[in-house]
Amino acid sequence: MDLGKGLEIMKKNLITFGRAAVDLNATEYNQTMEETMTFSKYVGGSPANVAIGTAKLGLNVGMIAKVSDDQHGNFVLDYMEKSGVDTRCITRDTEGRKIGLTFTEIKSPQESSILMYRDNVADLYLDVTDFDDEYIQSAETLLVSGTSLSQSPSREAALHAIETAKQNNVEVIVELDYRPYTWKSDVETSIYMTTAARRADVVIGTRDEFDVLENRENQSDEESVKNLFQYDPKLIVVKHGVKGSKAFTKEGEVIEGDVYKTKVLKTFGAGDSFASGFIYALKKNKSIQEALKYGSAAASIVVSRHSSSDAMPTVEDIEILIQKHEG
Amino acid sequence: MDLGKGLEIMKKNLITFGRAAVDLNATEYNQTMEETMTFSKYVGGSPANVAIGTAKLGLNVGMIAKVSDDQHGNFVLDYMEKSGVDTRCITRDTEGRKIGLTFTEIKSPQESSILMYRDNVADLYLDVTDFDDEYIQSAETLLVSGTSLSQSPSREAALHAIETAKQNNVEVIVELDYRPYTWKSDVETSIYMTTAARRADVVIGTRDEFDVLENRENQSDEESVKNLFQYDPKLIVVKHGVKGSKAFTKEGEVIEGDVYKTKVLKTFGAGDSFASGFIYALKKNKSIQEALKYGSAAASIVVSRHSSSDAMPTVEDIEILIQKHEG
Amino acid sequence: MDLGKGLEIMKKNLITFGRAAVDLNATEYNQTMEETMTFSKYVGGSPANVAIGTAKLGLNVGMIAKVSDDQHGNFVLDYMEKSGVDTRCITRDTEGRKIGLTFTEIKSPQESSILMYRDNVADLYLDVTDFDDEYIQSAETLLVSGTSLSQSPSREAALHAIETAKQNNVEVIVELDYRPYTWKSDVETSIYMTTAARRADVVIGTRDEFDVLENRENQSDEESVKNLFQYDPKLIVVKHGVKGSKAFTKEGEVIEGDVYKTKVLKTFGAGDSFASGFIYALKKNKSIQEALKYGSAAASIVVSRHSSSDAMPTVEDIEILIQKHEG
Amino acid sequence: MDLGKGLEIMKKNLITFGRAAVDLNATEYNQTMEETMTFSKYVGGSPANVAIGTAKLGLNVGMIAKVSDDQHGNFVLDYMEKSGVDTRCITRDTEGRKIGLTFTEIKSPQESSILMYRDNVADLYLDVTDFDDEYIQSAETLLVSGTSLSQSPSREAALHAIETAKQNNVEVIVELDYRPYTWKSDVETSIYMTTAARRADVVIGTRDEFDVLENRENQSDEESVKNLFQYDPKLIVVKHGVKGSKAFTKEGEVIEGDVYKTKVLKTFGAGDSFASGFIYALKKNKSIQEALKYGSAAASIVVSRHSSSDAMPTVEDIEILIQKHEG
Repeated sequence: MDLGKGLEIMKKNLITFGRAAVDLNATEYNQTMEETMTFSKYVGGSPANVAIGTAKLGLNVGMIAKVSDDQHGNFVLDYMEKSGVDTRCITRDTEGRKIGLTFTEIKSPQESSILMYRDNVADLYLDVTDFDDEYIQSAETLLVSGTSLSQSPSREAALHAIETAKQNNVEVIVELDYRPYTWKSDVETSIYMTTAARRADVVIGTRDEFDVLENRENQSDEESVKNLFQYDPKLIVVKHGVKGSKAFTKEGEVIEGDVYKTKVLKTFGAGDSFASGFIYALKKNKSIQEALKYGSAAASIVVSRHSSSDAMPTVEDIEILIQKHEG
Repeated sequence: MDLGKGLEIMKKNLITFGRAAVDLNATEYNQTMEETMTFSKYVGGSPANVAIGTAKLGLNVGMIAKVSDDQHGNFVLDYMEKSGVDTRCITRDTEGRKIGLTFTEIKSPQESSILMYRDNVADLYLDVTDFDDEYIQSAETLLVSGTSLSQSPSREAALHAIETAKQNNVEVIVELDYRPYTWKSDVETSIYMTTAARRADVVIGTRDEFDVLENRENQSDEESVKNLFQYDPKLIVVKHGVKGSKAFTKEGEVIEGDVYKTKVLKTFGAGDSFASGFIYALKKNKSIQEALKYGSAAASIVVSRHSSSDAMPTVEDIEILIQKHEG
Repeated sequence: MDLGKGLEIMKKNLITFGRAAVDLNATEYNQTMEETMTFSKYVGGSPANVAIGTAKLGLNVGMIAKVSDDQHGNFVLDYMEKSGVDTRCITRDTEGRKIGLTFTEIKSPQESSILMYRDNVADLYLDVTDFDDEYIQSAETLLVSGTSLSQSPSREAALHAIETAKQNNVEVIVELDYRPYTWKSDVETSIYMTTAARRADVVIGTRDEFDVLENRENQSDEESVKNLFQYDPKLIVVKHGVKGSKAFTKEGEVIEGDVYKTKVLKTFGAGDSFASGFIYALKKNKSIQEALKYGSAAASIVVSRHSSSDAMPTVEDIEILIQKHEG
Repeated sequence: MDLGKGLEIMKKNLITFGRAAVDLNATEYNQTMEETMTFSKYVGGSPANVAIGTAKLGLNVGMIAKVSDDQHGNFVLDYMEKSGVDTRCITRDTEGRKIGLTFTEIKSPQESSILMYRDNVADLYLDVTDFDDEYIQSAETLLVSGTSLSQSPSREAALHAIETAKQNNVEVIVELDYRPYTWKSDVETSIYMTTAARRADVVIGTRDEFDVLENRENQSDEESVKNLFQYDPKLIVVKHGVKGSKAFTKEGEVIEGDVYKTKVLKTFGAGDSFASGFIYALKKNKSIQEALKYGSAAASIVVSRHSSSDAMPTVEDIEILIQKHEG
């Protein structure tokens, strides 16, 4: 596969596509959200976090997104620019729609309920007319978040972006990123997740997310990858939480990735940091085995910190952690 | 007028009608909202604040409202109950709609921009089937917030509540409480504000809000009250911000109310605390002159504190402040 | 009352407000709609029919309405112009909305089921910005159809039109014209029917429609008029179908109107022709007693003919029929 | 290919999927629609017409559709049953939505403008829960109309039906059937037409419809089939109106079909009768060359008659016409 090719001047290594949002994380620990009286503000949203995470690791990254034309939209744009993400294709919603919010409690390391404001949010109104196809053509890789498929017109924008990438030999990564509240039904979710994943070169998701994609329960990794490998995917990564992850190649390889144990503060943010570390490593011509380590190390670091975006590690952070475990 | 009649066992002195929401106030001062990184959570929404404010002053108060069926809805209900407000007619939205949010910055005492999440919020879906007419019939006074008129079905619920009150000799106070973002047009606002205000016994609003009601600019207080006194209102209070307020009676009296100077932290919350103090005093058979003092003192205390709801003063707080100024 | 004042040059005797639609009447008699294979096209919609009916009787009539920008809209506009109705305030829907349709069967004189296409139709999108207040100010009388109150923005346009008329001493007739399928609930219907009727000078409706207005069952005419006469109405006409009609004045007069027996083909169209004859006669300074005769005669003629609009009688038709009955 | 396999007892030869509607055809010729005063009622909608057309030719046919729960819905169901179509999977809309209407004028053989009522119609609310997957599994062939892809939830129902057919070795025909008024944008149309057509075994459309599918102008037949033959299609038919049609096979054959000249009354209905004749012939093991003749003959007969559905020819009609031309 082609994901590891070297950086070219001006060419984006990665463009992420989908939602940029605001996280409001409880500043008090060991409390329910009802009891929580203060919240800290961070950039959130899976593809925004991956853009920030990979930019922090040194990749040349851009994002296609739509944010609110208000103070929260200003904050997100500003933070991403300071993180080194190219924001020229992040547009403003001109109809007064707001940016999505995620309130989190930190009740215990295992329990962290969330409360989302996703009704009619700006990111779901990202439209095909909001970005130039040339921007996608200029990239090595396009990462599309499954949540962007959940409603029109963002759904059509995402499908069009994937098709544009495919027709211009830009690699496509689909991060399943399933959030139930934005979808109408299981069948609908399965139809669009499947349509997108079949066209992807790389598919990343949790075991549950692959079940959602197939609209079946308790599938095995082997069944899931067998179905998808009939189409375009060449590499599929199934994440199993604390049990680690498994990468499958079209050629039949199976590579297992371990988890790096840490003091867990909260579990959210783990997936986005995993994707950031994993993609970075592939871009640097590391083996899939190595890339899984980078992903796990990055996830381990983020779950021990307060935010998802602000907590994204550096290459040094990751490599020190890997060495510590291997030493 | 009848507002000052004594408390009866079991009979609510006041039922407020309309939105209960969550305020997220900047914990850092002298910063824009973009720069603000932590927010403190309070109950918000004008009629919720008045319910809390008057309950804290000792009135027997209930509220008719609809809140989200989530952590924020739990918080609001719980807080109001602890404040002594009867919440049996506050229902939960069963369609997953969220409670409204207001983020505030505290840039300077004069400038405090806000950012509202009001799209499709639970309070605008309060329906006539959500409350019993008997609850209104059991009250001395019904206070309806103008914002509840801004969209259906909350609009029809508010008009029905007013009509039910009128037909059962329950006094009606309309607090104009104009929030532009929930209305579609100036004509629409004028139509429904007018329809409600003409049926009210008491109308309270700022100078700007009376202009909005009439869909005219730069009207005088005298013109506004002349129009409304052709219909049911007996008492009209026009608030002029730092210049104080004026109360007009149908019989032709004009009573001026002063402002109690204080160190202003932020201006929001002033109107709700004014209404709380004013209504409390009338219920206690104070004169209109005295009631304006109670309103001004309560407003003065709230603008010097961090929140709108939590900052509501006690009777003692108010009376000490009045004595200090008169002394 | 002032309805009978003489015609003035240029001044409209009557402006009707609300829906213009297309009727598709079965050409075959004694068949269900399912069996009916051909339909004839006519202009329909209560206020359009009254405009055509009164114009045919010689009044100077205009209409405020919104029709589709298509072949059916062309037909309606053209037909009304040929009938002598001033159509300069009939606008076109620019969003592609269609004109309402009413399919009718003529199964038997007593049974004539209908099938309506009213979803998202142009007339319910008539907006306050679609007409000039001056047009209303130029009229002697404004007739508003209750159906125009059933949805926004037509609802606000109707309430604004009534308010504009009231403030300019233009008489207001409210024709209750209740069509259940456009209303969401009985309470909603009652709220807006009541709001409009209380501001009217003349209210016309069937016994059932007055029950709908009050959201009560089996009210007597006396109860209904007692409630409304507390407000602006001076003349109220309650129609009892084959049992005739009753007119009530604020001063306490009760005038009964008989029905003119005829060979009934179908019953629809009776109300609009009654209103046309009744209003015409009042404008010509006839007594209320005489006006009820004109209304009954006009209704009698229309129910014996195939359409509602095309069948509207001339003054001669009406007066011949009255003479025949009195002779 | 497998389309010509013999009829099996109980097994449906064909299930059509999509809209059933009502056509209201001008009974007067050589007039604009504005001038047309009477209309005749017929069953309409492309997949309904093909179901009726093929049933009349003797195939065992069913339809998956949603119709209104009113007199027009009754008429359509009844007519289809009498035509021999299995209607057990035609459901009723329980939300009061209407069946689509198409008014046609017959101005001249070349000009026949139409006026459609398609806003919020029942067929676009056909949902995955409205039919059993087993029904599709029981068929030899599923024909999906492109119009069913134009809005949710009919869009997802159509994509799910195609996927169900594919996974059960039921052949899939996609009839592009592009109707601009139901689609939001060209990009959206292209995305879903492409998604469906790539999964089809057979694709049928006009030259213009293939351009719409590709969102390009003036493509050649060769370019269109080259793109689609990269995916599942085995047979593609491009219709060129009066210039005849061309069938392309994945193996590279190109078969041209002529037009059978006739006295044209109106052009609508030609496509549906073509599809009916063509599919019938393939099912009867005729060659593609022969099937194109059956299609052309059927189209020729329908354009000389007044309706689309009622005019569908018998096998005898078709074969007599073919013999006449070949003799």
